[in-house]
Amino acid sequence: MSATRALRASNGLLRASSSLTKPATPAVLESRRRFAASARAMSSSFYANWEPEGPSVKTEIPGPKAKAAIAGLDKVFDTRSLNMLTDYSKSAGNYIVDADGNVLLDVYAQIASIPVGYNNPSLRKVAQTDEMINGIINRPALGNFPPVDWASVLETGILKVAPKGLNQVFTAMAGSDANETAYKAAFMWRRQQDRGGPDVDFTPEELSSSMNNQAPGASQSLSILSFKTGFHGRLFGSLSTTRSKPIHKLDIPAFDWPQATFPQLKYPLNAHAAENAAAEAAALSEVEHLITSYHIPPCAVVVEPIQSEGGDNHASASFFRGLREITRRHGVLLIVDEVQTGVGATGRFWAHDHWDLPHPPDMVTFSKKAQTAGYYFGDPALRPNKPYRQFNTWMGDPARAILFRGIIEEVEKFDLVNKTARVGDYLFGKLEKLAEKYPGQFENLRGKGMGTFIAFDSPRRDEFLAQAKKVGVNIGGSGQSAVRLRPMLVFEEAHADLLVEALEKIVKSW
Amino acid sequence: MSATRALRASNGLLRASSSLTKPATPAVLESRRRFAASARAMSSSFYANWEPEGPSVKTEIPGPKAKAAIAGLDKVFDTRSLNMLTDYSKSAGNYIVDADGNVLLDVYAQIASIPVGYNNPSLRKVAQTDEMINGIINRPALGNFPPVDWASVLETGILKVAPKGLNQVFTAMAGSDANETAYKAAFMWRRQQDRGGPDVDFTPEELSSSMNNQAPGASQSLSILSFKTGFHGRLFGSLSTTRSKPIHKLDIPAFDWPQATFPQLKYPLNAHAAENAAAEAAALSEVEHLITSYHIPPCAVVVEPIQSEGGDNHASASFFRGLREITRRHGVLLIVDEVQTGVGATGRFWAHDHWDLPHPPDMVTFSKKAQTAGYYFGDPALRPNKPYRQFNTWMGDPARAILFRGIIEEVEKFDLVNKTARVGDYLFGKLEKLAEKYPGQFENLRGKGMGTFIAFDSPRRDEFLAQAKKVGVNIGGSGQSAVRLRPMLVFEEAHADLLVEALEKIVKSW
Repeated sequence: MSATRALRASNGLLRASSSLTKPATPAVLESRRRFAASARAMSSSFYANWEPEGPSVKTEIPGPKAKAAIAGLDKVFDTRSLNMLTDYSKSAGNYIVDADGNVLLDVYAQIASIPVGYNNPSLRKVAQTDEMINGIINRPALGNFPPVDWASVLETGILKVAPKGLNQVFTAMAGSDANETAYKAAFMWRRQQDRGGPDVDFTPEELSSSMNNQAPGASQSLSILSFKTGFHGRLFGSLSTTRSKPIHKLDIPAFDWPQATFPQLKYPLNAHAAENAAAEAAALSEVEHLITSYHIPPCAVVVEPIQSEGGDNHASASFFRGLREITRRHGVLLIVDEVQTGVGATGRFWAHDHWDLPHPPDMVTFSKKAQTAGYYFGDPALRPNKPYRQFNTWMGDPARAILFRGIIEEVEKFDLVNKTARVGDYLFGKLEKLAEKYPGQFENLRGKGMGTFIAFDSPRRDEFLAQAKKVGVNIGGSGQSAVRLRPMLVFEEAHADLLVEALEKIVKSW
Repeated sequence: MSATRALRASNGLLRASSSLTKPATPAVLESRRRFAASARAMSSSFYANWEPEGPSVKTEIPGPKAKAAIAGLDKVFDTRSLNMLTDYSKSAGNYIVDADGNVLLDVYAQIASIPVGYNNPSLRKVAQTDEMINGIINRPALGNFPPVDWASVLETGILKVAPKGLNQVFTAMAGSDANETAYKAAFMWRRQQDRGGPDVDFTPEELSSSMNNQAPGASQSLSILSFKTGFHGRLFGSLSTTRSKPIHKLDIPAFDWPQATFPQLKYPLNAHAAENAAAEAAALSEVEHLITSYHIPPCAVVVEPIQSEGGDNHASASFFRGLREITRRHGVLLIVDEVQTGVGATGRFWAHDHWDLPHPPDMVTFSKKAQTAGYYFGDPALRPNKPYRQFNTWMGDPARAILFRGIIEEVEKFDLVNKTARVGDYLFGKLEKLAEKYPGQFENLRGKGMGTFIAFDSPRRDEFLAQAKKVGVNIGGSGQSAVRLRPMLVFEEAHADLLVEALEKIVKSW
């Protein structure tokens, strides 16, 4: 893998610190603009010492050490979905290291949830602060006993990056409960409206029937509309809106909630413009039909900006503007699930920033790269009319909220969202050439202009992912045939070169 | 509060370290037996320097600083359920400190979730280890990329305290998802059995109907049986089994699942033995009736050892043995929800240890004082027949699992479970006397022999809780009229003296 040693000399983040010691040529000025903060905060060898020089695959994966350890682990923990037994203490930046010392370029990143690299030095500092230690050992019941600095932690962290138009948050633990608490807010909001406003009390019948899980107290007359091939989590409410694969849903009771078709775009987009527009129009009209005619009418529509687990299905900004228009017109809430798309990977902080919406979504859910979770909202009416209606013991985790603040600082300091937009364009260009060179091997290449949130279909997908490990890259799949790229926000042009080189090796051998 | 200065000289934990420097009288030998490990590990002033000397209430609660801060927080975070704005950096041991510097003896402990005291010095050390920092900044997708030492973290932590007969764990984030994933395991287990075993494949009809949330793929023909006044969480599946209060359930869709009456015992127990036995027999017979005749038959029964949110409702060990017998006889799983009762507060590590069951529960869920969550199980058939059926991105949090290991070490080092049994007996004795002295003020005193997991009913409960703050104690309520005591495991006889003194002050003023 000597080719990969070029990484050190590559452009971007890794070069930045050394460029700061050179005379002020225009290129260096530009570099200084991007990395001004780093000059003050970091030693020149900071990032250079952080990452391995490149991938290095020494054994089969799993190798002998991993195999032995997995056999032991399996006695107490289900290992059938195990992908790699990972040595996190050795992993660094974009590189994941396994139990046998194999070093892989990681463009899966813990199912898209590592934001700024393994063992990020800035996050290490955050983890050592008194504030973090306090958050770890004194975990509060946030709804009852919030810490004195909770407003500040929110305002300098989670809320600093709140989507445009939204200024409040309900914190949660992970994507599933972020979505479910958003759904609960939607049900309470709508029922409160139907009841005649927040001051109208529950009827005795509502109070008593709710305890029996029956209408009218337990609302059985409202639903959440989701999209086919969408994924929103795997607890009972979120799973009722998840439509990715039967294996996610089989044998689990579900609510009788409606699903609309997500437009199935054809690629390349410019060759199928009319057809795709028609597919999106049909999908929107199906949504409107379900809103007005489904036997359990939806009080909210939940949608991912890019359906991720379902196979990286995209739709145009105009489709989402249409969805916003229809939901507003019918008094239905729009919940945008940014659990996988949020926090920069699409080249905007939130993927829905690409849509140029005239009115913001009603709620935006987040988790994964945020390392914490919750839903943003703006309309005060989305706070239920009484306390304790939306409540649980922990309501999130301040330690993880503090970490997200550190992530946001790192993202700002290194301008990582704009960088991801730039590196994504670079990577997409190279993949387009690869797709031309190997027809049929990189089909439906998608995610142009969406940062590094890129995918393609492989006719031999599972084999493709297995082969990738052998050439030093950890990649994930989604849907039936998609190879999904989910690099971290510290993924550089040099890493993109390595990645494309590796992808070519895979198909070249076939 | 000068009386509280006696605390330093009190028996138990605080005295332990100094007693180690005295000549070996029999009392000291006993003390050495209990605290042998501490002698090696800790300096003599370790615990003595840890806690404030006693409560100290200087302002109204909330005081001026808290009021100003709460107004700011409310703009971005719902504060209507706020109890005290807390300064965790100043809180220590059994004492919680608020924004205005008021110091309260805390027997609510973040809704029963602080195990070994605020700012516990041993946990502080754990939080500073490389292992913890690694867990914070490199959060894995545990099902796909578990850390190389995950088996060891489990075996020396979560699984070291596994309930008797259970040796595996599925890790989760909090109580609600711990219960919901246990329910999912129950549904998959039962459907797999009905299908003819783990090797029988899903039918095409099951595969396609599951995607539409319809039977037979999405099981609409099985339920989870729970008990009236029980609490198991507030997400959609767990909320369907929660029967505590309408405010928890109103407007949220729920599954049509059955509920049985939880025996309503009368106190004092010895004066109502026959009546209580009859109530328990009736409850068991209702369970059996629902198992055999409910139109959506249960595949599992979920029960709390002591119904906590629902008002501290107890039942006898014989009731639970009966429940185990009935569920086994009908091939229905028994899930014991130890989210609030687990980790020592009842004087046994798990509350169901009090029952002397001939067969263990099928699953035991845990969270709160464990600071992590999940469900234990033993039967390999409870692992679903295929991977990815029970899965999510994070599947828990290794950082919190490492913390639980530290908590377990602290509990063992100071023999905190046995100590809690002892202090609980001491406290209960004093409360019995108080109840005699103030008839009608401490009704239905319950939790005898259950460590510090003690409650009573107050005719002016909400006022009682508000008054408690004025005399320096933070206490929680539950159900309609219960005052529930939920001290930490570091609660000593001296704290019990303080508490009882404060409780008497409240009722004396009426």
